[in-house]
Amino acid sequence: MVAKYDDGLDKCGANHAPLSPVSLVRRAAQAYAEQPAIIFEGSTRSWGEVYDRCLRMAAGLRAKGVGKDSTVAVLCRNLPAAVELSYAVPMSRGVLNMINTRLGADDVAYILDHAEAEIFFVDTGLADVARQALALAKVRPQIILIDGGDGEDASGLAGLAYEEVIKAAEPLDAWDTMPDDEWDAVALNYTSGTTARPKGVVYSHRGLYLTSIGTALEWSMPAQPRYLWTLPLFHCNGWCFPWAIAAKGGVNICLRAPVAADILHALQSEGATHMCGAPIVLNMVATLAQERGVTFSPRVQFMAGGAAPPAAVLARADAVGIDVTHVYGLTEVYGPMTVCAWRQEWDKLPAEERAHLRARQGVNYVIEEELSVRDPATMAEVPPDGKTMGEIMFRGNAVMKGYLKNPDATGSAFAGGHFRSGDLGVRHPDGQIELKDRSKDIIISGGENISSIEVEGVIYKHPAVSEAAVVAGPHEKWGETPVAFVELKQGFALTADELIAFCRERLAHYKCPTRVLFEALPKTSTGKIQKTELRKRL
Amino acid sequence: MVAKYDDGLDKCGANHAPLSPVSLVRRAAQAYAEQPAIIFEGSTRSWGEVYDRCLRMAAGLRAKGVGKDSTVAVLCRNLPAAVELSYAVPMSRGVLNMINTRLGADDVAYILDHAEAEIFFVDTGLADVARQALALAKVRPQIILIDGGDGEDASGLAGLAYEEVIKAAEPLDAWDTMPDDEWDAVALNYTSGTTARPKGVVYSHRGLYLTSIGTALEWSMPAQPRYLWTLPLFHCNGWCFPWAIAAKGGVNICLRAPVAADILHALQSEGATHMCGAPIVLNMVATLAQERGVTFSPRVQFMAGGAAPPAAVLARADAVGIDVTHVYGLTEVYGPMTVCAWRQEWDKLPAEERAHLRARQGVNYVIEEELSVRDPATMAEVPPDGKTMGEIMFRGNAVMKGYLKNPDATGSAFAGGHFRSGDLGVRHPDGQIELKDRSKDIIISGGENISSIEVEGVIYKHPAVSEAAVVAGPHEKWGETPVAFVELKQGFALTADELIAFCRERLAHYKCPTRVLFEALPKTSTGKIQKTELRKRL
Repeated sequence: MVAKYDDGLDKCGANHAPLSPVSLVRRAAQAYAEQPAIIFEGSTRSWGEVYDRCLRMAAGLRAKGVGKDSTVAVLCRNLPAAVELSYAVPMSRGVLNMINTRLGADDVAYILDHAEAEIFFVDTGLADVARQALALAKVRPQIILIDGGDGEDASGLAGLAYEEVIKAAEPLDAWDTMPDDEWDAVALNYTSGTTARPKGVVYSHRGLYLTSIGTALEWSMPAQPRYLWTLPLFHCNGWCFPWAIAAKGGVNICLRAPVAADILHALQSEGATHMCGAPIVLNMVATLAQERGVTFSPRVQFMAGGAAPPAAVLARADAVGIDVTHVYGLTEVYGPMTVCAWRQEWDKLPAEERAHLRARQGVNYVIEEELSVRDPATMAEVPPDGKTMGEIMFRGNAVMKGYLKNPDATGSAFAGGHFRSGDLGVRHPDGQIELKDRSKDIIISGGENISSIEVEGVIYKHPAVSEAAVVAGPHEKWGETPVAFVELKQGFALTADELIAFCRERLAHYKCPTRVLFEALPKTSTGKIQKTELRKRL
Repeated sequence: MVAKYDDGLDKCGANHAPLSPVSLVRRAAQAYAEQPAIIFEGSTRSWGEVYDRCLRMAAGLRAKGVGKDSTVAVLCRNLPAAVELSYAVPMSRGVLNMINTRLGADDVAYILDHAEAEIFFVDTGLADVARQALALAKVRPQIILIDGGDGEDASGLAGLAYEEVIKAAEPLDAWDTMPDDEWDAVALNYTSGTTARPKGVVYSHRGLYLTSIGTALEWSMPAQPRYLWTLPLFHCNGWCFPWAIAAKGGVNICLRAPVAADILHALQSEGATHMCGAPIVLNMVATLAQERGVTFSPRVQFMAGGAAPPAAVLARADAVGIDVTHVYGLTEVYGPMTVCAWRQEWDKLPAEERAHLRARQGVNYVIEEELSVRDPATMAEVPPDGKTMGEIMFRGNAVMKGYLKNPDATGSAFAGGHFRSGDLGVRHPDGQIELKDRSKDIIISGGENISSIEVEGVIYKHPAVSEAAVVAGPHEKWGETPVAFVELKQGFALTADELIAFCRERLAHYKCPTRVLFEALPKTSTGKIQKTELRKRL
């Protein structure tokens, strides 16, 4: 006998649909047909127009053989086409592979080959690296050229024009754009791969859908937000914001490059309300605003990921009218998946304390099942004492399907039933977690663990310091010792001894840097300081 | 050969979890352990406390044999226990059946029998009806008494005490509370059944989870909202707000009864920020606030469902500092599932026009797959001309699993692959829909269809009118004719002829009421005017 709650209560077309970001775009096109979807350099496309263009592009891709197992690679700056392809490629049932635009030709070639790219969209502004990559790659993807509008020479790249593909196709039927199964792959994002070849992280329609609405929910986004694209779209699919913006009927304000003057201009002339990026982007915008005497009203919302924003940067942002939401995550969990959950009562605390609380990584997003800090050997959770370190782990629907063609790495990452982030942290008594370091960034000096983040936090407090990074240097007696790399603000002077003395007033002495090097800091394409590069200099 | 995007990329414990409202409560308890979860008559329980109590109650229910196929019936006002049981019953894997507290004993007995209730929670304030219902019912559920605190006589109801069940149990392990499958039933809600016996609408964990976060998303709820329980928790599980509030770390402010003075008091003394209900509740609160010279600052957010709020009510709400979001839905789609999506440019329109736009039912929630207006015979969509009527239909993850033990009714409701609402409406050129009437409320006079809603909208504009309802009365010549039932505001006078003349100035004459009856309007438990009752009076 079938139990009463199973009998005649099956899934059918009326009561079940696969979760897919494709739905969010279709709904935006119906609910906000005449409202702006994409703004770029003064021209605007409505949701109705963008959806029609995407249905045509998806049809064009299908006609070229794109389907469930096809990789569609995209090398493009944050131009309107990058947003449109975020929508159109999932609609074609292909897998969207946004490639980091700052990679060298060798890495791009590796990715094209590893992903077995069938289609390769190339922004003509990046024609050089694309040409070189194709010369190195074994695969021969069909090329579609996106006119970057800056007169770049695309000769030698035999491809169709993006606009021609759109023009040539009849739009797909809106209901023919859904995946067969919500577990189907929708996107492929390569990790930055500091030590080895990058790994291909595979996202599902289900995970991307939940992350997109979960992000909008977590940030309490209002209807019709005006989102400024400072965050690269190749970074975890722009942290899933193309679809979060669709879900809220907002507008994507595109930028050719995330340079301070252009960002400030877009904030002022386009009335952007929301933006994301690493703390360095926040610092850059806040500093320029301060220099020019600009204060944002209404206040701008900034979601900061990639590193904890230093107190001084938070104070500067606050002064010019930017509210900061601090998030943390990794490519493997669809981008940020924890948020420093602010408590109303913290508003009353002194600025210093507020900044410290704001720098914590917080709690899991609502849509992620579990965030935990565990002993990586026993998998036991650490006590919530704010002191005992463990590895930060995630599980739930916003964890990748796995690494493409790399079952060993997938198996290691999921060993014990959780995704192991490789990051070390503590859980505070109030339930929020705090990142202490990447496991590889911990400095072990005389048997004591030193968190490079803690030392950097102190160095950032010095008024002359613009940016800083602390890494482990070799030390005859202690094994390792903290070494600080520092960039100063323009017009400031500081000696190594002065900075060390400043640290010794504020930190246990064994934690203080023993060497300070005033040098330009190398950065990744996403604005993270490359500690691997710094270590090579020692 | 397995395709590359399927190979070694399977679901596992790390990257997949069933969607369930249970997760939202667990996460609230971790992220907001010390923050208030429930406030009632001056006493507060934190999320940590509430979660512990629910883990214990769920364990107690398991010990009594509750599992995947068990119905747990609850007859309780909006007391803290009703919120806790919304959390605890799904954690026990039982199916939560909140029973309308205004039903008669005969209907309650029918529901207990039809649902095969194994456990029956009874608010002692409702002991009388429970006792009578149990005398009529065939089933013999285990009774658990909730002390309503108002000294009601619960003798003859042999049951355990709610608090004793909690005290006696060891809490379940948090990870033992999840359903095996997200399609499992989680709740059972009986329709009001105006013509026949009520039907049991079955919700899934997946649908309830998506609706809960979808509701918070649609309303752009900020973190830590203070939600006032004016909407009955038995009405589509309080439209899924117990879990929406958990998702945002907010607080449930409970009310013994939704009377105007208590609501106003809670808004002022507890700083409630959000509330829901029928337009009549909105009207009641706004009128009292106006009488007492109260203006809410910051403004209160009111989600109005059940009927379109009349322009005069909207104007009154606006004047006292209440923002209204108009939503529409049915029990079968988890409560409201369309929202009048406001456009910033409408802010500039005259009040009258704004009220008219605000009264439209709008667009589907982001989490619902499709809202359409179709010819019920051919299933063809009506043109978006704002004129052609069709039946409003839904499909997607926020459509019920079906009707319990009623495959015929489920089959009819889903015929053609969509849930057929039985409501008639149009789609406007901007994509938003507007409800014209329940199919059974349309008045057919001389072959012309008259929307009772349209006539009511005009009557509501008369300054002397408090409430009104228009139904079809028999007419020798025309077959049917509009008859208006009207309640006047205190201190106002109006004759039938005056009101008819008022209508004839504003409506085609064939649409105007030919009879006006000044009588008290009968209401359902959820505040809807009972047109069935009015028709009986003719």
